[in-house]
Amino acid sequence: MRTRSEELQIRTKGKGTYEITDEIQQVIADHKVQNGIVAVFVQHTSCSLLIMENAAPAARRDLERFFDKLVPENSEYEHDDEGPDDMPAHIRMALTRTSETIPIDSGKLQLGTWQGIFLFEHRHSPHKRRVGLTLIGE
Amino acid sequence: MRTRSEELQIRTKGKGTYEITDEIQQVIADHKVQNGIVAVFVQHTSCSLLIMENAAPAARRDLERFFDKLVPENSEYEHDDEGPDDMPAHIRMALTRTSETIPIDSGKLQLGTWQGIFLFEHRHSPHKRRVGLTLIGE
Amino acid sequence: MRTRSEELQIRTKGKGTYEITDEIQQVIADHKVQNGIVAVFVQHTSCSLLIMENAAPAARRDLERFFDKLVPENSEYEHDDEGPDDMPAHIRMALTRTSETIPIDSGKLQLGTWQGIFLFEHRHSPHKRRVGLTLIGE
Repeated sequence: MRTRSEELQIRTKGKGTYEITDEIQQVIADHKVQNGIVAVFVQHTSCSLLIMENAAPAARRDLERFFDKLVPENSEYEHDDEGPDDMPAHIRMALTRTSETIPIDSGKLQLGTWQGIFLFEHRHSPHKRRVGLTLIGE
Repeated sequence: MRTRSEELQIRTKGKGTYEITDEIQQVIADHKVQNGIVAVFVQHTSCSLLIMENAAPAARRDLERFFDKLVPENSEYEHDDEGPDDMPAHIRMALTRTSETIPIDSGKLQLGTWQGIFLFEHRHSPHKRRVGLTLIGE
Repeated sequence: MRTRSEELQIRTKGKGTYEITDEIQQVIADHKVQNGIVAVFVQHTSCSLLIMENAAPAARRDLERFFDKLVPENSEYEHDDEGPDDMPAHIRMALTRTSETIPIDSGKLQLGTWQGIFLFEHRHSPHKRRVGLTLIGE
């Protein structure tokens, strides 16, 4: 059993969900890991991870609208150094996930039929995001 | 050190929390893992994982009521292919967890005194749910 | 590759966020783990984990105020055995995290520039909290 690590770089173009399932599956294939786990870790506090319905884009739009309403950008926050989307981004991150640990079986991510892995960008401006992948297995 | 995997199948009978601590502990015992981790992964987007107070059922009822109120089923969602509990299920899943990584020490789950592991079902109708367990350790 | 475990004990003095990044980094150094993961697990249901902006204390104050408002302590809960902060503590825990899996590279936690690891205490009175660390790597 060995551990291997890679870093994905994801360019985001504003708020929304960006699927990264294929990129993660490709890293697993490159390293020929058959059985084990991949630990996915997003190295930021203003975007997050989401494992979500991957077939219906409307489901992701509803989810994004829910978070927009729950954590409004027009509220008054003490911390607004980078503008009105700064603090809501941190809160939406805290309400979702920074790390996910996903099983690998026979070289494949063991996701359910409708599951996709997404980077959930909470900032309006474009960003380059880093996602660490650690593969542990054989 | 080795990696081993199993799948739990959990039958749910509508919304609520279903404890799966004993089932996970049994898999650890079956595989004779003494020290390491178990990565728990729920393969669905309309139910989730929860590590919660396991002694007082009232605490889980309060928690379920909180999520019912925070993510109402009578709201207007764009995505409602499977009825009014479809989209709220995805949102409640996103607000809780899809994966948890739990330590194993001397063959036992290292949970706190009051912690139990639960499948949190967000759909009204009965479902058969799959939970992947990956054991890494020795 | 080996697995090693340690337990941190954190004394909290009421609600708030307590940084534990340095303590975790020290355990990694003590065990001389170069590459792999650390699985962090909080053994309680009334405090949680948070990976959050570590530079601006105002950002953490905003986040704490958000959770105070979202899960009010003056609401009526069925479960209030330990007072008005009992049930809100469990709900705030469920909305954040119990476990996080963080990559280690060249002996260092692979956190982003602004990320810190925090224990998020939800109870008013002082508590001694236990955080399990499992290191898997080489």
